[in-house]
Amino acid sequence: MKRTVSDVAEVVKATNITWHHGHVGRPARQALLRQRGATLWFTGLSASGKSTIAFTFEHMLVERGYLAYVLDGDNVRHGLNKNLGFSAEDRAENIRRIGEVAKLFADAGVITMTSFISPYRSDRKRVRDLHEEAGLPFLEVYTATPLSVCEDRDPKGLYRRARAGELKLFTGIDDPYEPPETPEIVLDAHTMSAPDCAQAIMKSLEDRGVVNPTP
Amino acid sequence: MKRTVSDVAEVVKATNITWHHGHVGRPARQALLRQRGATLWFTGLSASGKSTIAFTFEHMLVERGYLAYVLDGDNVRHGLNKNLGFSAEDRAENIRRIGEVAKLFADAGVITMTSFISPYRSDRKRVRDLHEEAGLPFLEVYTATPLSVCEDRDPKGLYRRARAGELKLFTGIDDPYEPPETPEIVLDAHTMSAPDCAQAIMKSLEDRGVVNPTP
Repeated sequence: MKRTVSDVAEVVKATNITWHHGHVGRPARQALLRQRGATLWFTGLSASGKSTIAFTFEHMLVERGYLAYVLDGDNVRHGLNKNLGFSAEDRAENIRRIGEVAKLFADAGVITMTSFISPYRSDRKRVRDLHEEAGLPFLEVYTATPLSVCEDRDPKGLYRRARAGELKLFTGIDDPYEPPETPEIVLDAHTMSAPDCAQAIMKSLEDRGVVNPTP
Repeated sequence: MKRTVSDVAEVVKATNITWHHGHVGRPARQALLRQRGATLWFTGLSASGKSTIAFTFEHMLVERGYLAYVLDGDNVRHGLNKNLGFSAEDRAENIRRIGEVAKLFADAGVITMTSFISPYRSDRKRVRDLHEEAGLPFLEVYTATPLSVCEDRDPKGLYRRARAGELKLFTGIDDPYEPPETPEIVLDAHTMSAPDCAQAIMKSLEDRGVVNPTP
């Protein structure tokens, strides 16, 4: 675990007045929130269940008194990343920025979920490295729903449009999805319900001391 | 206050199992953290006291059980914004991204501070608008230390280098600083101590119901 800025912060005490020149450290955040900041990086095909499981788990965490937040297309694509298109370069930059923001959230103590297809191993590897270098837990969560099931679901008609050639470079159709080789969590999201998936993730966070950590 | 995604989320209950298709809403976050998410946007000259006051206030909040986080050069410039330079376009994009990230943090329920010179009114206006459109409190905090005092302090020797022509487009020397016209908080940071400034900000957050809000 690398030293955080606050470990080396100069703290000047004069009577009861305290100046600080560095960030609050992770131990103080952990004590406040009874959790460690961490990133759960959901990856999987369109319609594989990423967002439903992430939201179900977000609600479960908050109901149990933990602070969680989901970064997804709704709050990122139309905000931070609204100046990015769909070129290879912009797709990589999209994932890079999301990874950096997830790292900031995790550093702040939040259990952070990202819900993006993020089809390429190299992009996900970079985000994992970012977290590991910063001493922050990073869990790749793979929603392993088969393409045929996703295509049958097709809630937004995207697969149909991709098959018809109206959408180009659609993941799983004419652009590759590279499954994680060693994801921390694999969810058979086509046979398990979203609440059951959320329970499985909770168990993993308990085992890793992300929730209710020992001080 | 605009409706958040979760207000309209479809929630399916089956026995004790709950599916969720949308974000946890702000009321649940507010109940969990006993605070409203908000952005405190520090602005002021280099060496005017922004970071010291922000860090001192961050520590004060966390000690009192509130969740706060400072976005600053340390955790943003070398991460999310490391692919930006110092052209006019990149400076504007720097502030835009910081504003979007602050908005995400505030949406998550965090009392978020940003510590950047952010010299231009138009950039700050855009960030304020972003927050106000999303129904999130935005407080401009102006560290009104006079240039002469900042230049005397010059902790990193930047003013000296700017006067010597070694640094170009340095705010206050050969690039303008546009003071806020109606900041929510003005700090005479050259005559008040950082803890006194932090106390003044706390008072303002109490008055606005950002900390310890009524449900």
